[in-house]
Amino acid sequence: MTAHRTADLGFARLDLDRAGRTGTPEVVYAAGKTPAQTVACLAALREGGARPAWATRVDDETATAIRDRWPDAVIDTDARCAFVGHLPDPVGNVLVLTAGTSDGPVAAEVAATLAASGVGCTRVDDVGVAGVHRVLAVAPDLAVADAVVVVAGMDGALPSVVAGLTDRLVVAVPTSVGYGAAFEGLAALLTMLTACAPGVLVVNIDNGFGAGVAAARIVRSVRR
Amino acid sequence: MTAHRTADLGFARLDLDRAGRTGTPEVVYAAGKTPAQTVACLAALREGGARPAWATRVDDETATAIRDRWPDAVIDTDARCAFVGHLPDPVGNVLVLTAGTSDGPVAAEVAATLAASGVGCTRVDDVGVAGVHRVLAVAPDLAVADAVVVVAGMDGALPSVVAGLTDRLVVAVPTSVGYGAAFEGLAALLTMLTACAPGVLVVNIDNGFGAGVAAARIVRSVRR
Amino acid sequence: MTAHRTADLGFARLDLDRAGRTGTPEVVYAAGKTPAQTVACLAALREGGARPAWATRVDDETATAIRDRWPDAVIDTDARCAFVGHLPDPVGNVLVLTAGTSDGPVAAEVAATLAASGVGCTRVDDVGVAGVHRVLAVAPDLAVADAVVVVAGMDGALPSVVAGLTDRLVVAVPTSVGYGAAFEGLAALLTMLTACAPGVLVVNIDNGFGAGVAAARIVRSVRR
Amino acid sequence: MTAHRTADLGFARLDLDRAGRTGTPEVVYAAGKTPAQTVACLAALREGGARPAWATRVDDETATAIRDRWPDAVIDTDARCAFVGHLPDPVGNVLVLTAGTSDGPVAAEVAATLAASGVGCTRVDDVGVAGVHRVLAVAPDLAVADAVVVVAGMDGALPSVVAGLTDRLVVAVPTSVGYGAAFEGLAALLTMLTACAPGVLVVNIDNGFGAGVAAARIVRSVRR
Amino acid sequence: MTAHRTADLGFARLDLDRAGRTGTPEVVYAAGKTPAQTVACLAALREGGARPAWATRVDDETATAIRDRWPDAVIDTDARCAFVGHLPDPVGNVLVLTAGTSDGPVAAEVAATLAASGVGCTRVDDVGVAGVHRVLAVAPDLAVADAVVVVAGMDGALPSVVAGLTDRLVVAVPTSVGYGAAFEGLAALLTMLTACAPGVLVVNIDNGFGAGVAAARIVRSVRR
Amino acid sequence: MTAHRTADLGFARLDLDRAGRTGTPEVVYAAGKTPAQTVACLAALREGGARPAWATRVDDETATAIRDRWPDAVIDTDARCAFVGHLPDPVGNVLVLTAGTSDGPVAAEVAATLAASGVGCTRVDDVGVAGVHRVLAVAPDLAVADAVVVVAGMDGALPSVVAGLTDRLVVAVPTSVGYGAAFEGLAALLTMLTACAPGVLVVNIDNGFGAGVAAARIVRSVRR
Amino acid sequence: MTAHRTADLGFARLDLDRAGRTGTPEVVYAAGKTPAQTVACLAALREGGARPAWATRVDDETATAIRDRWPDAVIDTDARCAFVGHLPDPVGNVLVLTAGTSDGPVAAEVAATLAASGVGCTRVDDVGVAGVHRVLAVAPDLAVADAVVVVAGMDGALPSVVAGLTDRLVVAVPTSVGYGAAFEGLAALLTMLTACAPGVLVVNIDNGFGAGVAAARIVRSVRR
Amino acid sequence: MTAHRTADLGFARLDLDRAGRTGTPEVVYAAGKTPAQTVACLAALREGGARPAWATRVDDETATAIRDRWPDAVIDTDARCAFVGHLPDPVGNVLVLTAGTSDGPVAAEVAATLAASGVGCTRVDDVGVAGVHRVLAVAPDLAVADAVVVVAGMDGALPSVVAGLTDRLVVAVPTSVGYGAAFEGLAALLTMLTACAPGVLVVNIDNGFGAGVAAARIVRSVRR
Repeated sequence: MTAHRTADLGFARLDLDRAGRTGTPEVVYAAGKTPAQTVACLAALREGGARPAWATRVDDETATAIRDRWPDAVIDTDARCAFVGHLPDPVGNVLVLTAGTSDGPVAAEVAATLAASGVGCTRVDDVGVAGVHRVLAVAPDLAVADAVVVVAGMDGALPSVVAGLTDRLVVAVPTSVGYGAAFEGLAALLTMLTACAPGVLVVNIDNGFGAGVAAARIVRSVRR
Repeated sequence: MTAHRTADLGFARLDLDRAGRTGTPEVVYAAGKTPAQTVACLAALREGGARPAWATRVDDETATAIRDRWPDAVIDTDARCAFVGHLPDPVGNVLVLTAGTSDGPVAAEVAATLAASGVGCTRVDDVGVAGVHRVLAVAPDLAVADAVVVVAGMDGALPSVVAGLTDRLVVAVPTSVGYGAAFEGLAALLTMLTACAPGVLVVNIDNGFGAGVAAARIVRSVRR
Repeated sequence: MTAHRTADLGFARLDLDRAGRTGTPEVVYAAGKTPAQTVACLAALREGGARPAWATRVDDETATAIRDRWPDAVIDTDARCAFVGHLPDPVGNVLVLTAGTSDGPVAAEVAATLAASGVGCTRVDDVGVAGVHRVLAVAPDLAVADAVVVVAGMDGALPSVVAGLTDRLVVAVPTSVGYGAAFEGLAALLTMLTACAPGVLVVNIDNGFGAGVAAARIVRSVRR
Repeated sequence: MTAHRTADLGFARLDLDRAGRTGTPEVVYAAGKTPAQTVACLAALREGGARPAWATRVDDETATAIRDRWPDAVIDTDARCAFVGHLPDPVGNVLVLTAGTSDGPVAAEVAATLAASGVGCTRVDDVGVAGVHRVLAVAPDLAVADAVVVVAGMDGALPSVVAGLTDRLVVAVPTSVGYGAAFEGLAALLTMLTACAPGVLVVNIDNGFGAGVAAARIVRSVRR
Repeated sequence: MTAHRTADLGFARLDLDRAGRTGTPEVVYAAGKTPAQTVACLAALREGGARPAWATRVDDETATAIRDRWPDAVIDTDARCAFVGHLPDPVGNVLVLTAGTSDGPVAAEVAATLAASGVGCTRVDDVGVAGVHRVLAVAPDLAVADAVVVVAGMDGALPSVVAGLTDRLVVAVPTSVGYGAAFEGLAALLTMLTACAPGVLVVNIDNGFGAGVAAARIVRSVRR
Repeated sequence: MTAHRTADLGFARLDLDRAGRTGTPEVVYAAGKTPAQTVACLAALREGGARPAWATRVDDETATAIRDRWPDAVIDTDARCAFVGHLPDPVGNVLVLTAGTSDGPVAAEVAATLAASGVGCTRVDDVGVAGVHRVLAVAPDLAVADAVVVVAGMDGALPSVVAGLTDRLVVAVPTSVGYGAAFEGLAALLTMLTACAPGVLVVNIDNGFGAGVAAARIVRSVRR
Repeated sequence: MTAHRTADLGFARLDLDRAGRTGTPEVVYAAGKTPAQTVACLAALREGGARPAWATRVDDETATAIRDRWPDAVIDTDARCAFVGHLPDPVGNVLVLTAGTSDGPVAAEVAATLAASGVGCTRVDDVGVAGVHRVLAVAPDLAVADAVVVVAGMDGALPSVVAGLTDRLVVAVPTSVGYGAAFEGLAALLTMLTACAPGVLVVNIDNGFGAGVAAARIVRSVRR
Repeated sequence: MTAHRTADLGFARLDLDRAGRTGTPEVVYAAGKTPAQTVACLAALREGGARPAWATRVDDETATAIRDRWPDAVIDTDARCAFVGHLPDPVGNVLVLTAGTSDGPVAAEVAATLAASGVGCTRVDDVGVAGVHRVLAVAPDLAVADAVVVVAGMDGALPSVVAGLTDRLVVAVPTSVGYGAAFEGLAALLTMLTACAPGVLVVNIDNGFGAGVAAARIVRSVRR
């Protein structure tokens, strides 16, 4: 077992080799951290070589702290992500679909993750199955995609339909959009896990970051 | 409040006026009864005027007991229903769709309920959304239906798509078909309750009888 | 497959043919949208021919934005709905019952949906089964209704009793009224799904809109 | 703290003072025991003074073992209970209602428990709310009862209606009767816990024994 | 069926005969109502003869509105209850136990309900099973009680221990006190439903009102 | 929209174009079908061009019926799959890991699916995290894989560890192995959905088929 | 990182160093294995140095296969465990309590695990809290124990009471004993996790093996 | 049974003998109490001999009230604990690990509990399994620990890995860190309960206090 580079900040122990091992650097999950902690992590990751250093679930206060430190940081407010350092040029093409307008913030996190990973992205929003012709109309986009990410709340039915129309891998992201028996995304999650079309793979509710990382892994495998 | 006709069998207290009040006679749910109890109930209902007297969830032993008593009883083994007395001539037309072959027994219970209620029925099986063109192909059937019943297990996505294609009422029946995160029909139930297309109404898991009774009420309202 | 008219707003892709296909235009679910997005959707739907254009789950800020744009918009604050354009003259008659006073906002959404759909409506509130004579007293209203919508939280027992008293279709709406083991409407939902009286059809918790759309479909079928 | 009489059988440690403390002797729950263990417990309880010694959830094999040992034992096959020793003369009157025929075995356990406790019992079966006039017809029985036990599966709505008609305590027993969203009695349990009429007290699913013990405590308090 | 007195306020339909039928008047559940609605209901109930008229789940704003209308109203802030009119003289004695200090508000609602029902009450707080000698120390209180109400959150274990020490009826109230796997009172609810000691009857989580009504019914039966 | 080839067997409506559209032919899910139905489906798929025609969840009786019809059918008893027609030559390499021996049947279904899809596969069994050095020892296998499928029941922790060691896509399959709080695979499913390492994609519990189809899509993308 | 000894059986990869690392050898979980697989694992573990080699969840068929191979194997039928090789002499003393007779098999698995681990054990059965004096009577046993294991189903209340009486670590084992709202051990599990007495640590439902391993670790720490 | 010292504050009944019986004094759970109540409890416990008197879940307002009364009180803001009186000198050594930075507050509560109990503690933060080498790097810390506490949210996988590396008892604390399918800590809780490595014992979600008390019991046993 080889040596490992770690940045020990006391409250955090950053894994500086992760980009080398997994293709994606350690990314700061800001939700459970103070703005100062997030900034300290970003600085250590950047010093450790991350291009870019990167945080998710960034609220307004944390965004301000980041911009105070790095005036040229990229803050994607839709996606609640922040990036310190230049984003790489994109290669490949991931198609990102949403079932409804309210699923937009999660799709934005997918897109931001792809951008930071150097992967190209096409977004088509609001193609829910209640107007199924809208789904059929994305056939040309499916034909040129390396992979497809489908973001849907409420009934979560869209990935089942899409996976029956394409031979590309379909990454399904349930969202917490909906009310009542949607149970904060549980309904959509179960729908996607039991999709009658095979080839659907599922991530956690509202986990646009995880879907983006996975899609980037696919594109890197394809474009290698 | 007027007087009520009741048949008191000790273990059961049959409501002989129910057909008059609700359009459907009291129907014997055989699952929790001995064959002898089911036969006794059918006899009392028949004597009370039910045309036909009728039982659901009939197993083989109970079916035999019914036929022993009424050699001309109609036993629908797919639907696990038994009828004593002639079925009425059908009026109207309910379209019954299934997502997969395994949903067939529940759809059969819908169809048997409609038959006993004097309502016509068209069945189209195995039109799941993984091959969405199969759904689009039922458009002509939708156009001539008084109401639509959609039976689906696993992801339960079919009613969302169908309700976006028609102005008819869509009655959705989740089934316990599937495994794992299907949780005995819970996944399909939640999908249908959160359908992104309005106009979907839901019954209990595997409740083909309830869906049939409801569809018959619609047809009677329309054809009145 | 014929051509489809769609209004593409970038963040939304509105289905302008939905009224033609399903009898109800696409309706804006305002809960996950900014006021500006909701206004833009209403404008596009109105331009696309919706009479009226219509939004649900409208909060105060969105209501103000709508009225700023269309001073003659109808804002139903009980129902949290907004309508741009004249409401059609009502035909038919749907009876809307509530079990308790707290179920009122959901019943208001049912009534507003019926009004926008051009369907007449009679409301009788607070007829819970703890005073069952109040339920029996609505018999004359049941006799003249085209369909019945029953709105109930807590134990959700009212639809079971009503469906045993009438031959009309009963659409049951569980509400999130209650506490503890009511589990935000889950108890009422399960009660309604397992109603011992057949002919009960269920929508999502607090989904007055869906119940209204379904009831309108019934009335249109009956009055055709 | 006074001394306690205990019968130590190695696998069981029987509480011989329980009748003195709580009014009901320790009762053998046969479900998790071998026939020999149940017989040994009954013998020790009988020797310890229980009048009668008593077991619940008795299957056929255990019933045979009990009768082999005590030929005059009373085996109530409906209730799956066994009694060794004479049952006391009944005092008082508990009304036991069921919503449907399938709830009968649980009601039988209530009745057997009352009998062993020396309490009188009136049973009226199959008075579900789908024919609510059947519920209203039990008013005379309610008027002369010391307490009421209501046994119901599926929607579990009966206790709500009954508790609105009487000033007696209503003990509600959910049963596992039903399928799908009944979830083995969970739907009925939640309905009863959220009953809109106060004065409803709930026991575990299918727990006829517990309901009987509680009702006997009430009667003893009243008749003291 | 006799005539029924009802006060129809439009948004509410008050059952003025409920005290006559059930021993407890209709009580206003203020949680889902505006202060003005609660005041209007109290006025109508008072006019209809309730002694006292009474509301539960009263917040500060509603309490102020009540006192503005009736300066001599009794507001019990611990119990969040309000009473208009004199409370009756108490008869009988219900022992109310809590497992911990945090269960106090629910026990206060029990006590207020008993007071309004004309039933006497003894409270002993903080006798959780982690110091079981505190439970044993209430034996003298148990010996003189007509009934026992046990209020407990977290593990909800107290009713099991108490019911093994007394022949009185034990009404168990789970509370939402606790965190994590307490799941807002679900853990305590399940514990109480599965209590290994029979004679435990359960109400909804935090439902001090229901427990008080039930205990009052017992005392009225005993003291009749 | 182009024409679609469908084989209509009455009880089934087979989608003969699915291999063209999605890369995998329609596959027969034998669990809800009679042996005769499964054989009929296989025959129709084979006639429609599937190479091979293929069924999953094949029990002994169905396997016998298949072999009776096609003596050279390949029956994989570990995987409970049957294939009619030659399996294609494998390209690419998917690494399939299991956490324990009991996960073997699900891993066998993954491997059989890959074989039928013409994809190569390396299996390494029983590398659970309780002996984490076993996981580290698969590093050389990870380095040469096109994708990784990780099959695990009980705590489902293995994918989290593996995804931190590789840049390949990790498809996680929870299994129903375990007891108690494993809740038939729910514990492992939740673990995998919340994996602290990104790049993990999840399928339904015990869904080896879905994981295999997804992995085959990845390999086809890579090897295109 | 040092080298690791592993026995690779193809279907299993046995960790021969586990006893050295963790104090307990790898133990064969027989539930998901064929009798031949279990025997092969035991042979490999024995050859690898386990004293004894050991399997849990052993059914009759597997027990026979083990005895056929090793006629002097110890088969504990209560605990469903098998041991090949001499059991070590016991040191220390763990007190194992059960709430009821039906919890016996799980307590037997605890005791067998302790025996195989070379730890002494005292069992006291059927000391449930419904007769709390039985719990108080174990005080002398508590005073001489190194640790306490409490096994309880149904309400799972016993560990809360015990942990308030002693300063020893209390390991709580919920069992699946009970019905209805016991939900296969879930009620007892939640009770134990929310125990109002600190010092209670919990294992999986019915996991006597895990409790025994943990208690043995405590004793080894103490007696070191 | 000996006499018990209790401090009766009306709203609380403090158990002054608990330290003698269980090794830990009664500790004030401030979450459900007013600042004044918490202060009163601390004063009574201190007077009763607690060294230190101690409260958990202390918010800012309560902390201020405590410091107003006892200016030299120790307030640990990370752990939300307050101590009145000197902390004892530490003996022994418990290793406290966290999977991520966000788990820090719970680990702080563990550490504070150990400090108040006179037990030494080593903390190592952010050693999640996504970088498993970080876990392996704590081997030297494991070798010198008396016990290990592992704090983890999200997938909760860390205890499984740690327990396979050591023969010390592992106390696992699931945290509510995570979102979506983490379900407020439920995912981590189930993972830990089903850990594939034996020797893992689990406390309630976010229950750092309980884990600390248990670890202190272990150390006292070892160091006795």
